[in-house]
Amino acid sequence: MKTLNEYPAHVRQSVELTRRRVSELHAELPRWGLVVWTAGNVSERVVVDPDGDPSAADLFVIKPSGVSYDELSPEAMVVCDIKGNLVDGTRKPSSDTAAHAYVYEHMPEIGGVVHTHSSYACAWAARGEEIPCGLTMMADEFGGPVPVGPFAVIGDDSIGRGIVETLRDSRSPAVLMKNHGPFTVGRTGRSAVKAAVMVEEVARAMHLARELGEEQPIPQEKIDHLYNRYQNVYGQ
Amino acid sequence: MKTLNEYPAHVRQSVELTRRRVSELHAELPRWGLVVWTAGNVSERVVVDPDGDPSAADLFVIKPSGVSYDELSPEAMVVCDIKGNLVDGTRKPSSDTAAHAYVYEHMPEIGGVVHTHSSYACAWAARGEEIPCGLTMMADEFGGPVPVGPFAVIGDDSIGRGIVETLRDSRSPAVLMKNHGPFTVGRTGRSAVKAAVMVEEVARAMHLARELGEEQPIPQEKIDHLYNRYQNVYGQ
Amino acid sequence: MKTLNEYPAHVRQSVELTRRRVSELHAELPRWGLVVWTAGNVSERVVVDPDGDPSAADLFVIKPSGVSYDELSPEAMVVCDIKGNLVDGTRKPSSDTAAHAYVYEHMPEIGGVVHTHSSYACAWAARGEEIPCGLTMMADEFGGPVPVGPFAVIGDDSIGRGIVETLRDSRSPAVLMKNHGPFTVGRTGRSAVKAAVMVEEVARAMHLARELGEEQPIPQEKIDHLYNRYQNVYGQ
Amino acid sequence: MKTLNEYPAHVRQSVELTRRRVSELHAELPRWGLVVWTAGNVSERVVVDPDGDPSAADLFVIKPSGVSYDELSPEAMVVCDIKGNLVDGTRKPSSDTAAHAYVYEHMPEIGGVVHTHSSYACAWAARGEEIPCGLTMMADEFGGPVPVGPFAVIGDDSIGRGIVETLRDSRSPAVLMKNHGPFTVGRTGRSAVKAAVMVEEVARAMHLARELGEEQPIPQEKIDHLYNRYQNVYGQ
Repeated sequence: MKTLNEYPAHVRQSVELTRRRVSELHAELPRWGLVVWTAGNVSERVVVDPDGDPSAADLFVIKPSGVSYDELSPEAMVVCDIKGNLVDGTRKPSSDTAAHAYVYEHMPEIGGVVHTHSSYACAWAARGEEIPCGLTMMADEFGGPVPVGPFAVIGDDSIGRGIVETLRDSRSPAVLMKNHGPFTVGRTGRSAVKAAVMVEEVARAMHLARELGEEQPIPQEKIDHLYNRYQNVYGQ
Repeated sequence: MKTLNEYPAHVRQSVELTRRRVSELHAELPRWGLVVWTAGNVSERVVVDPDGDPSAADLFVIKPSGVSYDELSPEAMVVCDIKGNLVDGTRKPSSDTAAHAYVYEHMPEIGGVVHTHSSYACAWAARGEEIPCGLTMMADEFGGPVPVGPFAVIGDDSIGRGIVETLRDSRSPAVLMKNHGPFTVGRTGRSAVKAAVMVEEVARAMHLARELGEEQPIPQEKIDHLYNRYQNVYGQ
Repeated sequence: MKTLNEYPAHVRQSVELTRRRVSELHAELPRWGLVVWTAGNVSERVVVDPDGDPSAADLFVIKPSGVSYDELSPEAMVVCDIKGNLVDGTRKPSSDTAAHAYVYEHMPEIGGVVHTHSSYACAWAARGEEIPCGLTMMADEFGGPVPVGPFAVIGDDSIGRGIVETLRDSRSPAVLMKNHGPFTVGRTGRSAVKAAVMVEEVARAMHLARELGEEQPIPQEKIDHLYNRYQNVYGQ
Repeated sequence: MKTLNEYPAHVRQSVELTRRRVSELHAELPRWGLVVWTAGNVSERVVVDPDGDPSAADLFVIKPSGVSYDELSPEAMVVCDIKGNLVDGTRKPSSDTAAHAYVYEHMPEIGGVVHTHSSYACAWAARGEEIPCGLTMMADEFGGPVPVGPFAVIGDDSIGRGIVETLRDSRSPAVLMKNHGPFTVGRTGRSAVKAAVMVEEVARAMHLARELGEEQPIPQEKIDHLYNRYQNVYGQ
């Protein structure tokens, strides 16, 4: 296993930029009420050449385990390789590191992973129920329901496998791991964080809708239309 | 299509003031918990001569598409004409611009439009259910229930039409577009923002009331009395 | 009707201190999430000689109507006499001034009144249901259930009368006016604000308790014990 | 009863450090929305020699009664002995001091105690219902359901006894005292505060889960596995 000093200078530079971004992205989790205490984590793949193979360096940056959101800084972030081994950092990586690593290894198009215990998403996860697609903002971002992944506990690669197998069959960038909570993915750390914010938002709105009755169904072709437009036209 | 430089100086001055107001009004949306991430938008009509025809210039200012609430500034706001065409600005206008434009074109008395995905309002919208008028603050501001508009998707003028046709039959400055969320209008951008804050407030209180039973009905003549007083006497 | 300048100097001094306190107490309403936009109001009786008759001057200080919580200052507060007439101030008093005045006139032991539209309290008020006493913190502060007052609309003294008649039969410093919302009273403005914070807190906790079943009843003698201890021993 | 000046210098030094920590830990209660107004309290045992008997000095530091979270400072904290008698401080100790003292006297391994009236935990407490273990984060922190303690009122040692007797039969660091609210314990004040944050988090997520159905059960051996890993491996 190589240490960070054995990597070429341009990789080390990219690691520094990723450390800064991952540190800043963590601030979004308490900001949007997705985490309490030290729960939750964001990781981002180290991209060496944006025009080349995005997984060239096979490294990612992640939060250290059990550290307060007040103590986060670029230096506190830790660097792991795609097998989840610690490559650089003075602290132990997040206890969810193996799940993040599995996603990076098996989904080369993915550049960011986020895990939270946000309350409404956890409620659907505790029941093992997918979130139905009853709002246009959900069609935009998720392209349909938010699916449920299997029950899996820390200790082997079963969480990572559950995430990858569930997301492969879905347009959704979010999966609700049963009795656990949401994992989200994206092309970048920022888009994975956005999906984490949005999955709680739609989990909450659809929970509230269901409390007093049933949502009106949205025809599948409208969901497809909205999803395709949003993925291709929205934003700058 | 004219560029902003082709408009007379007094129009350009009014555009600058409107840009500042619209930028500041956007801060109210996250402040009152109505939006997450980049969702939601406020627009205001450019008023050229407050004593004359308020739609003289046929311009309005709106938020750019998919931009964070941290990056908003008067300069970032974009200017569109009443057909929704970009007149000035370095960014793409909000993807809801066509709906705002339609309202300005067909409701000349309206000077401000707001759209959010606030959670409780979205829950009523997902069920396609109007918010019943069970609180005096609702009679004050909405003069009755908050009505539901048709299901419509982005791509033509069907959202704008749905808003205008629903609001024309109602005293309410807010409409819940089915499976989508609230749109609110007002004489100014500020009053449309107030309606967006209030529609979530009453959506929440009436949701909570219904969770444990039925509200006591308010007699129609009391609703009329409260609405007329509030519209004519309240405030400075 | 006298203007403030016609009152003796020690009354004018007391008015200034009350203005400052009332202005500062308003900041507690948005802080604890009890109000949105310009809703809600706090008033406090002007106490001339704390050892003598607390209503000697028959004046109270209240929020101006429809003014934002960002614009509040001691100078913006307005002074009214016990009939609700404006005695000093550059703005129109709160549209709830008549209700506050009625309470000061008919409950001489009361030195502060607060009105909000806090969501959970409004939900019980919309159903016209008292909040049952299922938590020791409720026994402490309210000495039993929070009672419901009659439906009454602005325009005469019916809101004030409804508050006074309901509170006279109860140990509670809070009343839920039907289809309207909570009014609270206290020996000072600060204690009335505390009651406004606490009534929303217990309205919320008891709402959540009822959502999934029934609370365990607390025996009446325990409620009496807790209420008597808290009113006489708690605090400094 | 000794005054603080009669204790040796190293005890007085430890008291000062504990005062600072307890003052800072109180800021976490409003930060995570666990308390309103002056409710809630944190205490920590004064540890004289961390390698020796942690209860050597038999002192603990706690919040004064009925004081606002804005006025807390190391100096405002009060020092009590293990019988709950005031040893140092200019203010009356929290009205829950006797319960904290009882825990320190009967659970020598405990170094911190927290009490709040957080809303979702209070809702389960009002019904006298334990929080079922339906999420992995709950298995991690609580090792099973959060148990309910007996109904007990202030005045003798019945609250303290109820806490101790309930926690002795459970892996949970939190107990929901019936019709009252949560008490949590920990090896330090900080870990007791963490348990107070987490008990509200799981009370909320499981409340939401139950609102729309039943949670999927987690097999007992998985709960055991998660609890053992988290207690021994998580964090730095």
